[in-house]
Amino acid sequence: MGRLLVVGSVAFDTVRTPFGEATEVLGGSATYFSTAASFFTDVDLIAVVGEDFPDEYVTFLKSRGIDVSGLERRSGKTFRWRGEYTYQLNEAHTLDTQLNVLESFRPKIPDHYRTPDALFLGNIDPELQMDVLNQVERPRIVACDTMNFWIHGKRDALWKVLEKIDVLVINDGEARELGQDFSLVKVAKDVLARGPKYFIIKRGEYGVLMFHEKGVFGAPAFPLEMVKDPTGAGDTFAGGFMGHLSSTGDFSDAGLRRAIIFGSVMASFTVEGFSLDRLRPLEYQDIETRFRDFKRLTHFEDLS
Amino acid sequence: MGRLLVVGSVAFDTVRTPFGEATEVLGGSATYFSTAASFFTDVDLIAVVGEDFPDEYVTFLKSRGIDVSGLERRSGKTFRWRGEYTYQLNEAHTLDTQLNVLESFRPKIPDHYRTPDALFLGNIDPELQMDVLNQVERPRIVACDTMNFWIHGKRDALWKVLEKIDVLVINDGEARELGQDFSLVKVAKDVLARGPKYFIIKRGEYGVLMFHEKGVFGAPAFPLEMVKDPTGAGDTFAGGFMGHLSSTGDFSDAGLRRAIIFGSVMASFTVEGFSLDRLRPLEYQDIETRFRDFKRLTHFEDLS
Repeated sequence: MGRLLVVGSVAFDTVRTPFGEATEVLGGSATYFSTAASFFTDVDLIAVVGEDFPDEYVTFLKSRGIDVSGLERRSGKTFRWRGEYTYQLNEAHTLDTQLNVLESFRPKIPDHYRTPDALFLGNIDPELQMDVLNQVERPRIVACDTMNFWIHGKRDALWKVLEKIDVLVINDGEARELGQDFSLVKVAKDVLARGPKYFIIKRGEYGVLMFHEKGVFGAPAFPLEMVKDPTGAGDTFAGGFMGHLSSTGDFSDAGLRRAIIFGSVMASFTVEGFSLDRLRPLEYQDIETRFRDFKRLTHFEDLS
Repeated sequence: MGRLLVVGSVAFDTVRTPFGEATEVLGGSATYFSTAASFFTDVDLIAVVGEDFPDEYVTFLKSRGIDVSGLERRSGKTFRWRGEYTYQLNEAHTLDTQLNVLESFRPKIPDHYRTPDALFLGNIDPELQMDVLNQVERPRIVACDTMNFWIHGKRDALWKVLEKIDVLVINDGEARELGQDFSLVKVAKDVLARGPKYFIIKRGEYGVLMFHEKGVFGAPAFPLEMVKDPTGAGDTFAGGFMGHLSSTGDFSDAGLRRAIIFGSVMASFTVEGFSLDRLRPLEYQDIETRFRDFKRLTHFEDLS
């Protein structure tokens, strides 16, 4: 089992979906990511919270075996996000963002975090992502998320990060913005030519595509009877993906494909509840059961 | 090799997409379906055209081995459809529909069509679908397509058809309208309880789901560098699916999954050109090659 370092946000989310709502619940990319990854590997967390962040949440993260030495507590309030979803569950509508302590966040890496086996650069300012990358010994695998805000506002800084990473994980809308082309295949060619060896495109309820030099892997999302809240699906996808890779150290094509499925499994659980509600009672056996269900979902016989 | 009977529309389409346009080109559900199916099996076509329908199109259908004894030519003009697509390629915007000879279409089944091995009831008035069903000996497999217009306007007649068929093939928007629920899993349970043994939900560029009593099969769409026109994708999907089943007679779960992939292969070729442009030069070997590409696209190792 390797050590997986993640930097990202910890937040209070207020979310409304067609299936319910939740107010000031635990959220944030690093929270979702590290919780999902903790089922597979040892996770070191870097993030910032305010004075209002309850001890019970820290206790929860610790209970998942997550090292929270890098969870900085500063004076001020924790980052807050408020948003809603219509039946177009793939698209979150942000109603309000209060950066609070996140605004002046400068990730500081504790000494014992500096030799991770795997690193995930969550969706923060690409300059901060680069800063983190520069503070650690190059891990065996580095993945990165981003969003349209950075693609538009810090395009050059973002491309500098992308040149140094192994895996870019973004959604289809972001991919089209980044590549400035409608064809995901063309965008993938462009991205792969400029740095990352793997380019993962998340498509929400429609699944995921992973492009690499030798081809492409595609998996549908797991068909669910009840989706409650898509928030965190992409982050827990990345957490399952990187957690599995960190745990196995198997970066072969077969290993990466399996990691994609583990990521998809974690995302499928996440959306069945608000906040981390569905991940809290989860056991590793549940994950393996759904992995096998995924195999049954997608398997067909090749031509002889 | 079995005989596959299809009833549906033959049309002149005028289409604009972000990638080009085409004026009064050969289209229609039965045209796309029968052309796709003709790569796998013998096809008997029932449809109606007007006096303006060029002999060269009939010659083309014949050249694909399609029996056109049931292609009725009536006085008046051929059915015309005009539509456009934005970058939301999954959704066609109809600009104009001229039913013309389709308005008074009453399918008449030639005697030598009355014992098909497989039957596809294309998207026409459910009362006409029932009429066709009543004119033939019950084939080993019957599939049916429909659209929101009939789901709203002839709900009862449609359900009567669905009680008598084996496979319902519609898109996700139609599925939610039919089942009056957002959850495709819930809709599928409802549909399967009321008649069809298989319920196939087409999701355009996102692939396809097939629900049946014992579970669900999901496949992504083939990632393409260039999509030109989505028109006919769903019909050629159904053509490849039913063509393969008619050819093999293998209605096992494995057989149906393979048929889904053959359908997806045919749809992936169709959208690479306007009208039937990409299907015309196609050879069966191209189909097998893309089937194998599909296997590489979706394969991952199960847990031990």
